[in-house]
Amino acid sequence: MDSKFLKIRNDFPILNQKINNERLVYLDNAATSQKPQAVIDEIVRYYQNDNANTHRSVHTLGERATEEYEAARGKVQRFINAKESREIIFTQGTTDSLNLVASTYGEENISAGDEIVVSYMEHHSNLIPWQQLALRKHAILKYIELTNDGRLDMDDAQKKITDKTKVVAIAHVSNVLGVTNDIKKMAQIAHIHNAVMVIDGAQAVPNQPVDVQALDADFYAFSGHKMLGPMGIGVLYGKNNLLNKMSPYQYGGEMINFVEKYQSTWADIPWKFEAGTQNVAGAIGLGKAIDYLTEIGMQNIANYEQKLVEYALPKLLNIPEITVYGPHSPKLHNGVISFNLKGLHPHDLATALDMDGVAVRAGHHCAQPLMKYLNVVATARASFYIYNTVDDVDQLIYAIQDAKEFFKV
Amino acid sequence: MDSKFLKIRNDFPILNQKINNERLVYLDNAATSQKPQAVIDEIVRYYQNDNANTHRSVHTLGERATEEYEAARGKVQRFINAKESREIIFTQGTTDSLNLVASTYGEENISAGDEIVVSYMEHHSNLIPWQQLALRKHAILKYIELTNDGRLDMDDAQKKITDKTKVVAIAHVSNVLGVTNDIKKMAQIAHIHNAVMVIDGAQAVPNQPVDVQALDADFYAFSGHKMLGPMGIGVLYGKNNLLNKMSPYQYGGEMINFVEKYQSTWADIPWKFEAGTQNVAGAIGLGKAIDYLTEIGMQNIANYEQKLVEYALPKLLNIPEITVYGPHSPKLHNGVISFNLKGLHPHDLATALDMDGVAVRAGHHCAQPLMKYLNVVATARASFYIYNTVDDVDQLIYAIQDAKEFFKV
Repeated sequence: MDSKFLKIRNDFPILNQKINNERLVYLDNAATSQKPQAVIDEIVRYYQNDNANTHRSVHTLGERATEEYEAARGKVQRFINAKESREIIFTQGTTDSLNLVASTYGEENISAGDEIVVSYMEHHSNLIPWQQLALRKHAILKYIELTNDGRLDMDDAQKKITDKTKVVAIAHVSNVLGVTNDIKKMAQIAHIHNAVMVIDGAQAVPNQPVDVQALDADFYAFSGHKMLGPMGIGVLYGKNNLLNKMSPYQYGGEMINFVEKYQSTWADIPWKFEAGTQNVAGAIGLGKAIDYLTEIGMQNIANYEQKLVEYALPKLLNIPEITVYGPHSPKLHNGVISFNLKGLHPHDLATALDMDGVAVRAGHHCAQPLMKYLNVVATARASFYIYNTVDDVDQLIYAIQDAKEFFKV
Repeated sequence: MDSKFLKIRNDFPILNQKINNERLVYLDNAATSQKPQAVIDEIVRYYQNDNANTHRSVHTLGERATEEYEAARGKVQRFINAKESREIIFTQGTTDSLNLVASTYGEENISAGDEIVVSYMEHHSNLIPWQQLALRKHAILKYIELTNDGRLDMDDAQKKITDKTKVVAIAHVSNVLGVTNDIKKMAQIAHIHNAVMVIDGAQAVPNQPVDVQALDADFYAFSGHKMLGPMGIGVLYGKNNLLNKMSPYQYGGEMINFVEKYQSTWADIPWKFEAGTQNVAGAIGLGKAIDYLTEIGMQNIANYEQKLVEYALPKLLNIPEITVYGPHSPKLHNGVISFNLKGLHPHDLATALDMDGVAVRAGHHCAQPLMKYLNVVATARASFYIYNTVDDVDQLIYAIQDAKEFFKV
């Protein structure tokens, strides 16, 4: 299997370039992934052959576009094992998906004194919508603590989630700490208390098999651009009984049934939540990305990334000036590795690594409360994906050593 | 100039195909436009060379993506002559833009008894957000009447807009009636009463020069996909003093300044309104579409489409069984022509035209109150763009005659 992964890089034209005269090693995958030629070709094919606005169109291009768009919905459904395709709503991305849930389900079901439970490791997109909803509704926002090695404290979760809890909103995989959370257990706890479980799956769906029915997720959000798909397309999965009861998020074309002068009625799900012209090319491109990932196999991808971590993590920990955040055991750590080099601001470190062709992110990773919790201002972050190899890890380690020497840390 | 337009079709690979063995004549441009090879190439170039997440990234790809994304904002600014680039917010499309305004400015500034003025020719995307806001706020929604030939009744506008009016929301160009509204005059009336002027420019920006400062628009919304750009990208222009005072629409990454456990502060405009990973490829593709349109010249485009209307409209009106909605004088009618063939449902007519390679839309065009106003269930609609020619018009007329014979109407 591994030999197959070594060839994957060839499918990604962007990787075939030099940055500052060095081979490009792209390790910013938690921010966005690169696109295989197959996905780029699919976008081109669509625009060159079938482009049209979808639904209620009776001309040939319109019918083709509609068919391909709804076929993409079916691919998403099967990919995350949703029960029905109408439980799949196309959005702009994870942020859009989570704002949709907070602004509809949240707005309609949270009252003063109700509790919303998040964790300290949430990305701003799964934190601020709930924080602001709590402020609007005079509800209480509670944070689940982390263990010393940066995992969710499940004992604390048991305490924080109570019969007053209406929503539990947790990341499936942290975008900083490299941990996969036991989100299935979390959903069980939430459901005991009749709370709904909202899962930010942005970092999970690209890297491991996800089964929303097995997880018993009520809402599950993710982005196309982090899983080889185009930008500007994302997904919100919601259980059909919940989506059916919710009010629309945006108003406009395609999401209506009847529009009178002073009132309107809404279309059935999923279209009730898809107002206006959708990103049809984006959905179809995401469908092709799913084909590509499925062909490799999501479990194979998870296993391969695990091997990269097993190779990389000890090498990083072996550098005395490096601090790694999150678990130090490779078994507990996935392909997102956040770290700092003593005495050097992560921005300077990232700039130095870029001089050696290595692209990592530096900053608060849209997780300021977590930074404060970890008592850091920012971190550097290397995140792996299917086209990364042990050579990439070696180049990262070399570049860190280089930066150490240059900055004399 | 016209000879140049005859060659434009060659830039659009999708048009080089047969539909039902006939030359494709795409006349559904008010729903979405086709993409020139230059725009498709730009998307490919971006994904193959520079793709990354924007902002706060210090690696080379991230810097390139950020630079190109912000350069696209500058192109949009110059294209509609906004005073500052921070007045340009990238959205998902017109619907997203208008919902943003209703959910932020509207939510914060409309109270019980206030009046919101729309017209009978509004697209659902510039109608339902205001209708639902009025319902939530116990505000009053008022409709400006149309003249007998389907233009805005400016005398009625003078009456309907009063000191109680807080928002006037009107289409610059109707997506059904083929009329360009005197939106500058409308803004003057609105401003006399201290109301803000929200303009749905989805059908205007692709087809004529638009200068938001000359119009004195407070908010101006449009879509990329109707002006040769990719799907999933749109624009909201807003005056900087209004945008500055408004609360964010969505919460997430990139739109914050500081995030504390229980409160947050926001970034400056435009980023305050751009939560989460943006459609960078979409923005850059739209920038290329603007280059393409600018090269031709927006006034040249408006003039050319006017000539097509002058050729097409008399031919359509010459068919006794055809009813054309909106003004019958070509001077008052732009490149959107809605019509019905006596005795035939527009869906059947559109299906018949498709058999002759002609793509038109049939339905209520997301304007159900207008359909009721016109006392029709639906219409067929042919809408022209830069790649259409008099040959296309001839094929449309031929196909209508063909349908007449086939259905014996």
